[in-house]
Amino acid sequence: MGFKPAVSLTEQIADHLSNEIITGRLAPTERIQELKIAKNLGVSRGSVREALLILEGRHLIDIIPRRGAVVSALDADGMEGLLELASDLVTLLFQRVAQRTAGTGNGTMKPLSASIDSLTRSLAEDDEGFVSAKFEFVQAAFPLAENPYLAAVLEDLLPAVHRVTRQASAHPSYDRGDTLRFARGLLEAIREQQPERIEELVHGHFRRERRLASDAVVH
Amino acid sequence: MGFKPAVSLTEQIADHLSNEIITGRLAPTERIQELKIAKNLGVSRGSVREALLILEGRHLIDIIPRRGAVVSALDADGMEGLLELASDLVTLLFQRVAQRTAGTGNGTMKPLSASIDSLTRSLAEDDEGFVSAKFEFVQAAFPLAENPYLAAVLEDLLPAVHRVTRQASAHPSYDRGDTLRFARGLLEAIREQQPERIEELVHGHFRRERRLASDAVVH
Repeated sequence: MGFKPAVSLTEQIADHLSNEIITGRLAPTERIQELKIAKNLGVSRGSVREALLILEGRHLIDIIPRRGAVVSALDADGMEGLLELASDLVTLLFQRVAQRTAGTGNGTMKPLSASIDSLTRSLAEDDEGFVSAKFEFVQAAFPLAENPYLAAVLEDLLPAVHRVTRQASAHPSYDRGDTLRFARGLLEAIREQQPERIEELVHGHFRRERRLASDAVVH
Repeated sequence: MGFKPAVSLTEQIADHLSNEIITGRLAPTERIQELKIAKNLGVSRGSVREALLILEGRHLIDIIPRRGAVVSALDADGMEGLLELASDLVTLLFQRVAQRTAGTGNGTMKPLSASIDSLTRSLAEDDEGFVSAKFEFVQAAFPLAENPYLAAVLEDLLPAVHRVTRQASAHPSYDRGDTLRFARGLLEAIREQQPERIEELVHGHFRRERRLASDAVVH
């Protein structure tokens, strides 16, 4: 698991609010009431303001000077921009993993294959458990790509992608097996050193998620 | 110039501190003293803490729970990771500009050619003026790429790149003409719809900057 520094209060509040937004309990374009949140959580208003800056960095809210914060909208254009960038960055991530693990033997890939195992186990869990396992698969690639900047940017982008995936997973034709095949295909493409195949898999997968998510909004 | 919402106090503090780090007045790994800054600027400690969260999002400082904030190190590995990601994202940015302006006539490119003109004029200015003009050229591409997420991620990455460029520009063999040729070459590659040429130009340019910056550190 590796050493993890203690999570600050600000980050705990940010994680809590991220979750509220991802699950839709705080709806797109809804106003965020600093004072109410501070009171409900029993924390200072300053801590909430700090948490909101983290949420802005995670692309989940917009802070409008002198007006306050609102949950970012999730319209078709926004979703397209978000998933386009996410596809490109996730492609870069796995292409780098392939590059950096070339010729290093099977042991290096252990974190990735272990998280595919836990993804397989989570097939039987609820939506949240399954979607989380999927994001853990992406995060397992961070140390292998050896670029802390890429990891930081993706880490900040994933909660917003999580929100879209959450929505897609509520669609009746959402197929969990598809995600599992995607992850297994990626691992194989990394092992076989196929950068173009990685791009194709990632873009195809995110395209499907986006279609299901926009469809779920309309219905 | 377009409408710009009022910049909040927090952002003003963040911009001030960013500038201190970019110019090296706050040195890599230096501890950031919240209280001292609050006193010097005549603002509350809370505002400084909020500004530090923005600086963390700009990859300029690291916040260590219960320890405080330090200016991020700028070692060879870090610089490589940063410029690798920046090259990839700037490539995506200009490739998208090419895609989205295809067949739209010369008028669409006006913001880009205008900022090349101001880059040309800034050849005679001091380092800071020139480097800023260069970043304005990249920012002029944001609205043309039509992806607010890509723009936001790059906007957060540019100050750290700015720090490296600032360092490179202090090197005796730094050639401003190189940057100008780079910008003109990019504009041409966009007009001619050459995505591979865009990638080549961007990666080549950042590689040279990185070499000069690391060289400047050693000497």
